[in-house]
Parts: sequence; structure tokens; C-alpha cells
Amino acid sequence: MAASTDNMRSDGTRLWGSLMEMAAIGPGVRGGNNRQALTDSDAQGRRLFARWCEGAGLAVSVDAMGTMFARREGTDPDAAPVLIGSHLDTQPTGGRFDGVLGVLGALEVVRTLNDLGIRTRHPVEVVNWTNEEGTRFAPAMVASAVYAGVMSLDEAYAATDAAGITLGAELERIGFKGSRPARVSAGPAPRAYFELHIEQGPILEAEGLDIGVVTHGQGTRWLQVTLTGREAHTGSTPMPRRLNAGLGMARVMELVDTVAWQHAPLAVGAVGHVDVYPNSRNIIAGRTVFTIDIRHPELAVLDAMDAAIREGTAAIAARMGLGVEIAQVNAFDPVAFDPALVGHVRVAAARLGYGHRDMVSGAGHDACWVAGVAPAAMIFCPCVDGLSHNEDETITPEWAKAGADVLLHAVLATAEVV
Amino acid sequence: MAASTDNMRSDGTRLWGSLMEMAAIGPGVRGGNNRQALTDSDAQGRRLFARWCEGAGLAVSVDAMGTMFARREGTDPDAAPVLIGSHLDTQPTGGRFDGVLGVLGALEVVRTLNDLGIRTRHPVEVVNWTNEEGTRFAPAMVASAVYAGVMSLDEAYAATDAAGITLGAELERIGFKGSRPARVSAGPAPRAYFELHIEQGPILEAEGLDIGVVTHGQGTRWLQVTLTGREAHTGSTPMPRRLNAGLGMARVMELVDTVAWQHAPLAVGAVGHVDVYPNSRNIIAGRTVFTIDIRHPELAVLDAMDAAIREGTAAIAARMGLGVEIAQVNAFDPVAFDPALVGHVRVAAARLGYGHRDMVSGAGHDACWVAGVAPAAMIFCPCVDGLSHNEDETITPEWAKAGADVLLHAVLATAEVV
Repeated sequence: MAASTDNMRSDGTRLWGSLMEMAAIGPGVRGGNNRQALTDSDAQGRRLFARWCEGAGLAVSVDAMGTMFARREGTDPDAAPVLIGSHLDTQPTGGRFDGVLGVLGALEVVRTLNDLGIRTRHPVEVVNWTNEEGTRFAPAMVASAVYAGVMSLDEAYAATDAAGITLGAELERIGFKGSRPARVSAGPAPRAYFELHIEQGPILEAEGLDIGVVTHGQGTRWLQVTLTGREAHTGSTPMPRRLNAGLGMARVMELVDTVAWQHAPLAVGAVGHVDVYPNSRNIIAGRTVFTIDIRHPELAVLDAMDAAIREGTAAIAARMGLGVEIAQVNAFDPVAFDPALVGHVRVAAARLGYGHRDMVSGAGHDACWVAGVAPAAMIFCPCVDGLSHNEDETITPEWAKAGADVLLHAVLATAEVV
Repeated sequence: MAASTDNMRSDGTRLWGSLMEMAAIGPGVRGGNNRQALTDSDAQGRRLFARWCEGAGLAVSVDAMGTMFARREGTDPDAAPVLIGSHLDTQPTGGRFDGVLGVLGALEVVRTLNDLGIRTRHPVEVVNWTNEEGTRFAPAMVASAVYAGVMSLDEAYAATDAAGITLGAELERIGFKGSRPARVSAGPAPRAYFELHIEQGPILEAEGLDIGVVTHGQGTRWLQVTLTGREAHTGSTPMPRRLNAGLGMARVMELVDTVAWQHAPLAVGAVGHVDVYPNSRNIIAGRTVFTIDIRHPELAVLDAMDAAIREGTAAIAARMGLGVEIAQVNAFDPVAFDPALVGHVRVAAARLGYGHRDMVSGAGHDACWVAGVAPAAMIFCPCVDGLSHNEDETITPEWAKAGADVLLHAVLATAEVV
């Protein structure tokens, strides 16, 4: 079998053409895209995708969350499908590749199988998850969350945008509230799920590599810290009498950095958002509210980081006489992708001669929810300067093709070529 | 001479009554005052003050900056006057005593001299400086700056409030653009200037003292630092690849604190105002702009602190790969009050049996500008919790009386009782 498929490659020119054609829908203001979930532009993109799928002989079905499944039948229609895809919705000032590469790369895989006349025992389904970005309707990755059973359909429908319109109403309005059950438990679980995505980080490009073999999705904790000191005049308050909530915040920022480095190389940590009261140049800050973002692919390490930051912050506050409150805003546990599927991705990259490395996904993806209900893995390709969620987000046609090639071989390795 | 005046005291009940009567004009929203410079409320307060002065037999003149001088003639009309006072304008949510105590305490001194039939060779003038607070029209202490020749009259007139109205126009509108020259150099310099003021800090109350003998006005430097890093995803950017302008800011905040403590006990330093871009919980800060406020009563030490902070900030930025710009926003050099006048204040407090200590003024006062053109000194009295620029600002009648008593004896020591 291996001998007969080793030389198979995707058509990079066709893939790039599809990417550019999709990017013409919902253009941004400076070269990127604004194709937010369940807008008219999203509907237009979905219809183009459906036409392409039907042109490739796929049967398109839509589930109750609007997620689209385009099925290439297997020789055994009862066999569990190999699911491949990502999302077509974008950030309001998003790039042309975040999510889109994974959907159209999957379509390219199916087109290539068609070109080469390859039959598989397992069906192959190309998926476009609804509202991965979560910018119009929070939270992100809502459709895969419903799919995996971690959120109810009603809860997802009730999400409202800034204008007060619900996700459920918009699904109906754009004609994509489908009849297929949204929860995977209603049918057979996929045999495998592969998601191709841009890295959204700088590592692959910096190391001159083409493929990231994603072994884990990082776990994330978002904490919010409130430090309470005492507002006081910067001139007339002696140093020993200050209860400086701004200085306390600075010390916690340093602590977060220290804890992240203590768990190098995979841990990260930062304070990105701060509010300082009264934020006046000649008043000692009486109160600061700021967020902490820590991530690690192993739960035990993430928990240890979380505990170290809570204890260290409490100690800083106690030493400085500050009041302290620490709240958990959000938490995603780490995801370990399926070792067998990760192995298929690694072997495919090596066999195809693409420079590659194992890596961890720093951002959340639909694959993280799917991994809870089916074997899953991810394939990363580089993006210029690690830039994403930005209209300047760019990849090269060569990187896109490399990603589609690896995805093709991951499918060949799991769908049982007959 | 000393024997005959040693028992002289101000009338604390009368002083407190005047303070409360003035506080009824331009009431705040919760017990304080909103009597900002050159508003109708300020005009009303000025007219009450003028009536009181005329009732005490004083001749009221107004200078071109609206500063009011109420003169008690001396036996030698050509002798240089002893000037005493402060300001009647308040912050928008100000207290009842900041500035007001110094003006009405000075009026009480004159009333007491009248009661006791004391004649002095030198005239005594009670002064109400225009727009000390600077909240409606920046900068603060503008009238004493013109008086001392460090700002031109035209520059002061051109200051505009948030509605675009000029200081000069408002002076005319409220009828307080006077004919007396605003610069001291147009006439004889005062023999002495004493300003009684609340401490606006916590030291006297904490130490159970009644009087602060102010030896210096702190010098102040305001710096603005801009650190430039690179916006990046908090999840997908490894620690070594971050250019975190937020963490750089935290380190400069710690540096400012360290430098202030290195010059204990008189040095102070803080970062009160910060701007973080884009200030998002999952984006590494690409840019921070923040202010540094450092103060010390000796110029050489202040310069050394300034240099240490500039060098340390540049070193932090260089180590972290951040861009850095440091701008000086404002600078006030330290003021050493006149040793002889300071001595009179210290002796008066001791003779009257008031607990007292030498101290430094952390805030700026009109006395700091006057000190450049005439011998000057300040007397502080405690305020509860060091609270000021706040409607909750409070003092006790006993503290007010102690301040007026010391001011009285400082005048007796310099105006030459005949």
C-alpha cells in the first residue's frame, strides 16, 4: 500500500487559487478578511464551499449548529469517517488563512483523492465548524464544544452579538440551521480528526521548518487579580507609609514571568491587561485590577504554576500591606492529541521530506474539543512573523501545499486505501 | 519685647467660624468644596474675604493676576511688608482647608493684632493668590509664578479651561483684574513671607505633633517613559521570543521604588499613570507609556535619582530588546526656605508649647515661587489621614488654632512690634 501512495501530492496551485477565491468574500480593509460567523459574508463563503464540495462529488449536510460536513463515501458506508477540516469564519480584522487553510486544505485532499482515483474503506468528511473565532458570538469554538457535548445546543443558540441578536436566530436567517444532530454522540464517532492550521506563532518560520507536528494543546488559566492599597499624594507621602497597588502589580508581573521561566521551555505567562486607579501621575495607585494568562501542555505543571502564582501574589500583598483578591476567569485543561495520529503526521512529514518538529499549540482550536470524543491531531504550517488575528497574516503557497500534502498522507494512513 | 508678646494667642473660635463660613461658598457634593479659580463661587469667596479685611481696617488691592493683598499699615509706611497668606481656590472635589487655612489664618493674625492693639513698624499684608490649584487653568501656582517673574502675564492670561475660556477673560468677567502690578519687581520685595498650610501628608498626625516646621520644598521631576516591544499572542509566543513592554514597565516601576529607597528618608518615587497597548488579556503588550514622579529636597540628590532612573531604564530596555524613549514632562527645582524665617517658626512652636518637627513639603505651594524673590517659610498643621485634594479632607479646630498661633508669633518676630 505504502509504495503505491508514497508519491501522491496535493495540487498547490489549485489550493492557493481556492484560498484566494475565498479571500475575495468578506474583504477586510487592508488585504485581510472580515467574514465573521453567521454574517452575510459567512453565508456567501459557506455557499461557495458547498458548491466546491458538490463539484467534487461530496454530499453536504449541515448540523443544528450550522457546522457543514461534506462526505466522500467510503467503500464501507458503515465505517467511521475520517474527519478533516477547520473553520471559514474570521476575526473582524482577520487574515486569509486562519481556519480557512484547514477547510480548503481538506477539500484539496479530497480533490486529490478524486484525481488519483483513490478509494478508501472509511468515508472522508470535510468539516467547516461554525463560529470558531467567537468574536461576534462568545465563546470561541462553540460548535465543536456542542459537538463534544461540553455545551448544550440551547446555551449556544442563546449567545448574543453586540446588537442583541442571538446565534440561533442568525443561523436560521442565513439558512444554515441544519437537521443533522449537532452532538457527535448522536452518531458514530469519527475514526480520526485531523486539523491543518497556521501556527499563529513564530517558531516554524524562525527555525526554517515547514510542518509543526502538534502533540498537545496547551492548558490555559486566566486569573484576575485585584490589589487594594491607598490613594495618596506622590509628594507628601513618605515611602514607608505607602500602600502602592501599582508597585504590587509590578511585582506580580515579575512573578508571573519568573514562574513561566521556571517551567521552561513549554510554559508561558504574561499580564496583558491592567487597570490602575486613579491612574494619575501624582497619586499613588489605590487599586489595580489586572489579568494573568498562564499556559502549559501538562495539567500538573499548569496547576503548579497556578498555585505558585496564587501563593506568590498573596505573599507580595501581605508584605506590602495590600488587600488582594484572585479570581479564576477561565480555564482550559491541556489536551494531549492522539499519539497514533500524531505519529501519522510525523511520519508523513518525514516521508515527504518536509522539515518538521513536534510542538504545542498555544491557541485553542476546534481540535481541542474534538479530542475529547475522538482521536485527534493537528498539523501546523508556518506564518510570516507569527502574525495572526491581523489582516497582515501571511503564508506562502509552498507552506500551504506542504500542509495539504501532510494532511493527505495522514488521511491515506487512516482511511484504509482499498 | 519677647516678654510682652509671649502670651499672645489667636482666637481659635473666630478662626474656625470664618473657615466654616467660607466653606459654605461653593459647596462640594459630600461636605467639601468646589470653588475653582475664577468661577462665580471663587468671586463670591473673594468678596467675603474682602469684606472681612475691610472690617478689620485693611486696605485691599488687587493685582493684574487677581491676587488680593489686604494691607495693615505699619508705623513706617516705606518699610517692606511682612506677607502672610495662601489661596482660597479649591480642587473640583476639594477640601475646606487646603489653602483656605493659610488665608483665613493670616486674617486671624491681623484680627488678633487689632484686638491686642499691637503696632508694627513693617506693614503686614494678607495675600490670596489666584489659581493655586491649577485644575481649571493649568499650571498650578500661576499667580505666584508671575509674581516671582518666572512666567509672563500674557502667558498666564492665555491659559484656557476645558471650555476654551481664557484665564484673562475670566479675571475680567468676575471683576478681579486689578491695577496693582503683578510682578514683585515693580515694587519693594516683602521683608518676609509666611504661608500656613495643611500638611497634605500623614506625618504630623501619625507622630502626634501639632506643627511642621517646613525647611524645604521638594524638587520634583516628572518623566514620561515609552517602551516599545512587539504585540504577540500570549499562547503561541515562546518566552524567549517575547518583547514584552508590560514586563519592561513592571521592571522600571521596581527601579523607581529602589532608587527612592536608596535615598531614604527624604526621597520619594512612584509610577502613578500607565497606558498599556493593546491592553488585552491574551496579547503581549507591544507598547507602554507611563509617568515617573520623583522628589527630593536637594537638587544634587534629585539629579542623581533622575540619572539613575534614566540609566536603569535604558539598561532594562536594552536587556529586553525594547525600544525606549524618556521625556521630561516637568521639573521643579528644590526650594530651601530662608533659615532665619524657618528659625522663627521653630522657636515660635517651641515657645507656644506645640509639638513640632522639621519637615519637607512634598507638594508645591505658592511659597516655593515666592522663595525665589523674598525670604519665605511655611508652617504645616496636621490633616486627618494625610487626606487632601479630597472632600473628606479634615483638620481639628485645635490644629487650626495652633497654626494661627505660630503664624502670629512668626509675624511678631519679623514685623518689629513698636
